[in-house]
Amino acid sequence: MTAHPRGFASDNNSGAHPEILAAIAAANEGHVVAYGDDDYTAAARGCFRQHFGETAEPYMVFNGTGANVLALEALARPYEAVICPATAHLNVDECGAPERIAGVKLLAVETADGKLTSDLAAERITRVGDQHASQPRVVSISQATELGTVYTPDEISALAELAHEHEMVLHVDGARLANAAAALDVPLRALTTDAGVDVFSFGGTKNGLLVGDAVVFLRPGLAQDFPFIRKQSMQLASKMRFLATQFEALLGGDLWHRNASHANAMAHRLADAISGIDRVQLAYPVQANGVFATLPGEAIQRLGDALPASLPFYVWDEVAGTIRLMCTWDTTEDDVDGLVAALAAAV
Amino acid sequence: MTAHPRGFASDNNSGAHPEILAAIAAANEGHVVAYGDDDYTAAARGCFRQHFGETAEPYMVFNGTGANVLALEALARPYEAVICPATAHLNVDECGAPERIAGVKLLAVETADGKLTSDLAAERITRVGDQHASQPRVVSISQATELGTVYTPDEISALAELAHEHEMVLHVDGARLANAAAALDVPLRALTTDAGVDVFSFGGTKNGLLVGDAVVFLRPGLAQDFPFIRKQSMQLASKMRFLATQFEALLGGDLWHRNASHANAMAHRLADAISGIDRVQLAYPVQANGVFATLPGEAIQRLGDALPASLPFYVWDEVAGTIRLMCTWDTTEDDVDGLVAALAAAV
Amino acid sequence: MTAHPRGFASDNNSGAHPEILAAIAAANEGHVVAYGDDDYTAAARGCFRQHFGETAEPYMVFNGTGANVLALEALARPYEAVICPATAHLNVDECGAPERIAGVKLLAVETADGKLTSDLAAERITRVGDQHASQPRVVSISQATELGTVYTPDEISALAELAHEHEMVLHVDGARLANAAAALDVPLRALTTDAGVDVFSFGGTKNGLLVGDAVVFLRPGLAQDFPFIRKQSMQLASKMRFLATQFEALLGGDLWHRNASHANAMAHRLADAISGIDRVQLAYPVQANGVFATLPGEAIQRLGDALPASLPFYVWDEVAGTIRLMCTWDTTEDDVDGLVAALAAAV
Amino acid sequence: MTAHPRGFASDNNSGAHPEILAAIAAANEGHVVAYGDDDYTAAARGCFRQHFGETAEPYMVFNGTGANVLALEALARPYEAVICPATAHLNVDECGAPERIAGVKLLAVETADGKLTSDLAAERITRVGDQHASQPRVVSISQATELGTVYTPDEISALAELAHEHEMVLHVDGARLANAAAALDVPLRALTTDAGVDVFSFGGTKNGLLVGDAVVFLRPGLAQDFPFIRKQSMQLASKMRFLATQFEALLGGDLWHRNASHANAMAHRLADAISGIDRVQLAYPVQANGVFATLPGEAIQRLGDALPASLPFYVWDEVAGTIRLMCTWDTTEDDVDGLVAALAAAV
Repeated sequence: MTAHPRGFASDNNSGAHPEILAAIAAANEGHVVAYGDDDYTAAARGCFRQHFGETAEPYMVFNGTGANVLALEALARPYEAVICPATAHLNVDECGAPERIAGVKLLAVETADGKLTSDLAAERITRVGDQHASQPRVVSISQATELGTVYTPDEISALAELAHEHEMVLHVDGARLANAAAALDVPLRALTTDAGVDVFSFGGTKNGLLVGDAVVFLRPGLAQDFPFIRKQSMQLASKMRFLATQFEALLGGDLWHRNASHANAMAHRLADAISGIDRVQLAYPVQANGVFATLPGEAIQRLGDALPASLPFYVWDEVAGTIRLMCTWDTTEDDVDGLVAALAAAV
Repeated sequence: MTAHPRGFASDNNSGAHPEILAAIAAANEGHVVAYGDDDYTAAARGCFRQHFGETAEPYMVFNGTGANVLALEALARPYEAVICPATAHLNVDECGAPERIAGVKLLAVETADGKLTSDLAAERITRVGDQHASQPRVVSISQATELGTVYTPDEISALAELAHEHEMVLHVDGARLANAAAALDVPLRALTTDAGVDVFSFGGTKNGLLVGDAVVFLRPGLAQDFPFIRKQSMQLASKMRFLATQFEALLGGDLWHRNASHANAMAHRLADAISGIDRVQLAYPVQANGVFATLPGEAIQRLGDALPASLPFYVWDEVAGTIRLMCTWDTTEDDVDGLVAALAAAV
Repeated sequence: MTAHPRGFASDNNSGAHPEILAAIAAANEGHVVAYGDDDYTAAARGCFRQHFGETAEPYMVFNGTGANVLALEALARPYEAVICPATAHLNVDECGAPERIAGVKLLAVETADGKLTSDLAAERITRVGDQHASQPRVVSISQATELGTVYTPDEISALAELAHEHEMVLHVDGARLANAAAALDVPLRALTTDAGVDVFSFGGTKNGLLVGDAVVFLRPGLAQDFPFIRKQSMQLASKMRFLATQFEALLGGDLWHRNASHANAMAHRLADAISGIDRVQLAYPVQANGVFATLPGEAIQRLGDALPASLPFYVWDEVAGTIRLMCTWDTTEDDVDGLVAALAAAV
Repeated sequence: MTAHPRGFASDNNSGAHPEILAAIAAANEGHVVAYGDDDYTAAARGCFRQHFGETAEPYMVFNGTGANVLALEALARPYEAVICPATAHLNVDECGAPERIAGVKLLAVETADGKLTSDLAAERITRVGDQHASQPRVVSISQATELGTVYTPDEISALAELAHEHEMVLHVDGARLANAAAALDVPLRALTTDAGVDVFSFGGTKNGLLVGDAVVFLRPGLAQDFPFIRKQSMQLASKMRFLATQFEALLGGDLWHRNASHANAMAHRLADAISGIDRVQLAYPVQANGVFATLPGEAIQRLGDALPASLPFYVWDEVAGTIRLMCTWDTTEDDVDGLVAALAAAV
């Protein structure tokens, strides 16, 4: 029995995968030049390039907020705008960091399922050259989305094409990129390098790291001043080796895929079981590691009371009665089955 | 033999203390609410309060840049100014982060030994109420200083008194606060709470942590919106428990003191030995864990070649021929003696 | 015949009222202390207070962008948010200045007619205390709106009440406040001081000034650091007397009212005539000096060709076929009748 | 007798030259497209190009703060630094606007007479490529300086050469550029285009305008996004014709030169007379329109009491007993003689 029972509230609530801790322990010897000029960092960069190609320029940062916002700083001047889904983490969960730090305006687009289409994006590419309007510069999508849906490579390519036609760039918030790739059973580069993505964030924390995310530049010329942006924006780690060794552990072998596909599998197990429960509906297609279920309000209350974790799930939409259930690398089949039983009892 | 020999270039080049890794491993179980609403964070906050008093409001962040700059964001509006020594890390090693992120102007003061006196600070409190001038709001000092010197409690009190007389606040960059307290053989609160400090950064990374620093507010009312500042400024960790457990390990017992006093002792051993070498002078009094030595230029070259680490020391002032030698929690007597021998041979 | 025929594209296209130029000429004697410490400025401040009450704190700035954005800087910290209509000038015509300069997030609300209701605003007051979300702090409306509609005093009071209930403030972009007051036949203070407004911009440029707008604080305590904000945000005029004397000319007598009511009357004359033209519809109620008319696309083209001014009107919505026709202090009945004839011919 | 006697406190205290007001009155007819797409603006741009060459890209703004800070926004990214004299207006009189708005760090250099030499500037070009340090990008000088001294074309060329060698740019704060050119009896372009300057501010307000300054780009490629920067930074005038017509009046004929050379002549008359007064010394060479005189403290007090203007001069350095006496386009010989008499009586 653990002191802190597992729940389904957030993939941030899980701990670090044991192989990650082992990698950190192994890197904890001697003195290593701080701030990234070390062989652990070089090795991690090599791992990124194995996945994303030789032109990939990866930079490790502390967290997803940093990864996304610093990417926008590098991609856009403050008078430029970022077209993104209204549900984007950038838009709703960063306390206004993109606006305050990168200075940009977000042009938020309502979507059906968290996915921006190239048609929806195209509608917001207006007033180009008009000095009174923030100039569209970045299209930003989340992969997987905040609603648990996944873009196909073709959908991403279409957005990249649109962006490039307008001399814009495509940014991907890949906090759950590993989950998307595992879900589609494609290599990571199929959703990034090969699909025309210019810059993406690669999420580590949500996929079993202790701490750490990365910004990866794919288009040459965009990264040249990023070291200064990272430092000035307070995201340069002094003991960089400890970020690097985690990414090496994640990407050097198949840990990224094991963790992600396990979380996805648990989400599917959960979704399948939920589909059989009366009065509970899936709110969005379950394509990665997130399950959104709509159920009667009083059932939500009962479910919360019945589950052991201090925050067992997240109420996504109080009015609609939708809860978010995130599966993670350490979710077990028993956890899922227990939740399903509690859910069935609650409704 | 290690793959990465220890050197004297930076206290950031060392790894994490084994007790810190052990604490992380112990905290790596089950699910814990992300972003700080968890019992590990509560325990860490309790440890800070044991040291700094019941009104202390500690907030953990990723690194020292974040700790210092976010403190300034909380303390000053952008039209306000920060009086600090010209050698302050804030002024010379943050790539302009205070100006760009907090918006403030730094009023940098030349000092003899890295220490701001209340007389020097008072000279910069001018043009109060003049709308054309940045308004002095913060006095900021580093403890220990970037030159390895240490403020006494009385010196800090004098600065606090000056600041408070002018409705300003006193900020301490305590990246090496533990070293200062150990050096003076006083409790941490003697240099902070009891000396009238309003806000300080508490350095963890340089004193044996894997990653993590903290901002600690001592004056009531200053911290109320800090959670939003921390999030918007990209320094809110999702898996906060892993920052927290490190601080609990550092501050809950005497690890902070063991690490710091060991590093200080090594610096004194080094300084004592250096004092006996011809043509090598100490540039500043050795009071904490940093030793600044001035030697002939060609000797610097020879010394670098003779030492095993990839970056064995830091050339502080090429013109003057001053090198910086930092001792850390893992520096051994053999390391020091080896350096001294190499130094003697090089000159 | 003038070299530059009058049109209906913008109230910014008109020149300065002759009484404004006369006031400038009269103030152009001798030396006057720069930056606002002069008797012209004192007199202008007095005029503001006659209209808005003795607690009004007016600050003159260069333009409407400055007035609105500096007000937000004074009212909100960067982690706070501003609820405004999606059509707000702040949201669509300032090239992202609120986000980049004040750092805030705009929470844009779709409205039927450019007017925010307290119900619509209330829906956006969510996640208070949640560190991941920009915190609602300001409700901002435009009076008259960008769509030519006008808030009644009661509607403003309802918004003020809502704001104050939530410890928020109500800001009014009063670029056309004079038009609104003239339209409703109420004193300026009925729409501001008496309705619970906390801060507003007062538009001069659109109502006959050469250059100049103002920020007026009505709630005590909000303005105390505004002089520094104005200077640092580059909106402090050195030869302040020339801004001041214009506002004295505008507000000291009835010029503000004459100009605004004339423009409104011309808009009504235009709207009445348009109502009689087949295939032309008014898009919004005509309540101040703006007329929005929807007509067939090819008629828009023909109308533009037929009119003498280089930019005779503004195409507001190309898809819907809506044009914006602004009347101003110098619009004549002949101008209106000429436009109506051209419009009738074009459709 | 005027209501507001002329003094010597500031060239901002004077009014507008009558020809400027006449130009404004002449431009006050009909409707003109707002925001700069009009023939007055085109004509003003043509005047700038006559002086500064066909590649000059002039942009008019409201004031000197705007001109200087927006130039820095265009020239530097926030992680870059600006090398300037410690006495630069940018450094001491803009309430921190360069830091807060452009995000840059100022590297302030002590000088003997307000003039940066290429040797002094070169000393601050350090740590290039070091991610911890703000990267030197701009050398900024004031012409004439804040101390009334003037750079020769050769001195400027040397600074330009230094800057360009290091892939930096040379910026000139030309709030008093006209005074400098008149003083040296050279065309304006000798101090800018021909000397290798990349961007400069051209001061109008201090040289007889009502309101208005300009940013002029000389190096191709630097100005391309300036329209957006100007708008977002709140310095785009809607009734641009009124800024434009003033610059046309100033630069189209010799008004710029008449005003500046008159002010300079008055300063020399003043300096000559002062040189003959015992116990009064000139603090700096008098080369443009500013005179700095050092006199006994009690004489300063008596002088202030004796003179009629509300702020007759500016105490530059209370400790040294130095006062600043600025001559302007409307200073008369009688004004100078009266001041000299009062000064002689006061000491």
